[in-house]
Amino acid sequence: MDDTFTPVTDVGEFGLIERIKEVLAPGAERVEVGIGDDAAAFATTEGSLQLITTDSLIEHVHFDRTYTPMRHLGYKAISVNVSDIAAMNGVSRVATVAIGLPNSISVEMVEALYAGMRDAAEGYGLSVVGGDTTASHKLVLTVTVVGECARKNLVRRSGATPGDLLCITGNLGASYAGLRILQHHKERLLEEGDGYEPDLSAYAPVIERHLRPTARTDIVASLQTHGLQPRAMIDLSDGLASDLRHLCASSNCGADINLDSILISPETKAVASLLDEPIERYALTGGEDYELLFAVDPSRETDLKKLADVQVVGVCLPTTKGIRVTRSGVSVDLGESGFAHF
Amino acid sequence: MDDTFTPVTDVGEFGLIERIKEVLAPGAERVEVGIGDDAAAFATTEGSLQLITTDSLIEHVHFDRTYTPMRHLGYKAISVNVSDIAAMNGVSRVATVAIGLPNSISVEMVEALYAGMRDAAEGYGLSVVGGDTTASHKLVLTVTVVGECARKNLVRRSGATPGDLLCITGNLGASYAGLRILQHHKERLLEEGDGYEPDLSAYAPVIERHLRPTARTDIVASLQTHGLQPRAMIDLSDGLASDLRHLCASSNCGADINLDSILISPETKAVASLLDEPIERYALTGGEDYELLFAVDPSRETDLKKLADVQVVGVCLPTTKGIRVTRSGVSVDLGESGFAHF
Repeated sequence: MDDTFTPVTDVGEFGLIERIKEVLAPGAERVEVGIGDDAAAFATTEGSLQLITTDSLIEHVHFDRTYTPMRHLGYKAISVNVSDIAAMNGVSRVATVAIGLPNSISVEMVEALYAGMRDAAEGYGLSVVGGDTTASHKLVLTVTVVGECARKNLVRRSGATPGDLLCITGNLGASYAGLRILQHHKERLLEEGDGYEPDLSAYAPVIERHLRPTARTDIVASLQTHGLQPRAMIDLSDGLASDLRHLCASSNCGADINLDSILISPETKAVASLLDEPIERYALTGGEDYELLFAVDPSRETDLKKLADVQVVGVCLPTTKGIRVTRSGVSVDLGESGFAHF
Repeated sequence: MDDTFTPVTDVGEFGLIERIKEVLAPGAERVEVGIGDDAAAFATTEGSLQLITTDSLIEHVHFDRTYTPMRHLGYKAISVNVSDIAAMNGVSRVATVAIGLPNSISVEMVEALYAGMRDAAEGYGLSVVGGDTTASHKLVLTVTVVGECARKNLVRRSGATPGDLLCITGNLGASYAGLRILQHHKERLLEEGDGYEPDLSAYAPVIERHLRPTARTDIVASLQTHGLQPRAMIDLSDGLASDLRHLCASSNCGADINLDSILISPETKAVASLLDEPIERYALTGGEDYELLFAVDPSRETDLKKLADVQVVGVCLPTTKGIRVTRSGVSVDLGESGFAHF
């Protein structure tokens, strides 16, 4: 028996996933997209394509119960998975929910959690069909979503080529802004005691983006309506810098992103300003925005402009050009924390 | 806002599931089997039937790392889900794995865990296609399996009728015997210190049944071969007493089980004897055997006898007759702990 003990932190999350991929045998023929994309894709016996993705939300790791309403948490647990299915250009159909419950969670809290899942399921047109409930030390919520996609519409991370236009939906940094303002006021509450009652109404949009994000299923529908097939797509869960690197690595290309074309909401800017933090960090590494980043054939630029809430923010380049972010004509390499040069 | 705090223990796991079912809207038309069976069933756009089930294994709740090899744990996490798909008379196709990792788990332990999943996947003919890795306070393993079933072959818990023969695969109580012998020797190790090295070889079969159970996919294949379509089926995860009650409640029938026809292995009997515990508890409430319990049209008794490793152990009755267990001609009602009367 091998007694080596390599801490997971030595290889990191992505290193660990590489090790896991090596251990697992390659999938059977029917597996069309395996580990390493937003969702996996497999063919049924009849040949239709099914998509599957799973994501856990773990207390103290992914959320803080002191400021997370259960109903929002249920909604978010569904959204983060639906977002992965959307990133494959697919439509979500069913979900299962495995929940680990500590003693401090009441039946009423569980009901609120599932009411949030029901809200999300209704909004996305999917059904929660099953699950598992167990005792646990912390609240753990693992949702799996199965979706569908016509084979011709499937979009992976890997199809972008130099010259493709890079597009982003919505605005970035809002979820991180919501998190930071909640953390900020939690710290002040701990300092000042129960009498502290902050007015958070000015930050409601970013707080909602953090606690109750919505997956961009509207964009998947809109792409379909306009006959636009992205060449590569990924959802922005880790943050633009990290997710762009994933898309470029899978597609074997570089990229140049124009920071000035990325939308940032006034509330996001207000939080960055209040906390005296660089707005670039919010937009590039904030994470959890659940917007979509996708690459489109440049000949489709006219059709692209017909899509609501989509900005062309850059272009794919040959790998040798690296992954760059440009602002006001100044371009820096988006290496590890490269954006810190701004 | 409703501030009532009802502890989950007040309503129990099954009470909680009823509350969750009330909160969730009824599934869409394509959902053919929703919450409350071994797995859910839904139709793809093309009309083929997909099955889905999810199960979590949580450290200190479902397993004890001191005597659970990681490779076995990975195997078990797949098996318990494949068993649910088998209970619908389906075949497992793909799995996703969400894993929560505490710092005390090394990369090598993760690799052993996934090697066990690979072993199971190869044995069952399924592919692990994706997942999620996160930090966690305890080791948490949530597996979701998607399978398939021709519509005409789908078996629910609800189709049994009075007169049907009740069948059980394999032998019962072995997993619980494995658990008890492991617990017994862990206690003695804690008392006697590191010098204590028990010889567990005599109990290897029951220890393996507990740590590395195998789902009865062979029975699903065998039923198919012999053209036998069970009217109702459930896998024995909670224990015969509890799972029989589920099948009878769903089918709206009673049952009489002949305890003398239930197979119990010599090793299971040896553990019960060593620990001076009633063997009935092992067979009726032990749980985690992952054998199948199913009801068959009595006119098929001849074909039933052709199935390897299947015993006819009882018969379905009208609801008014209750759920009974008979031994040596003495019959008791299998109410809450009814078997304690033996």
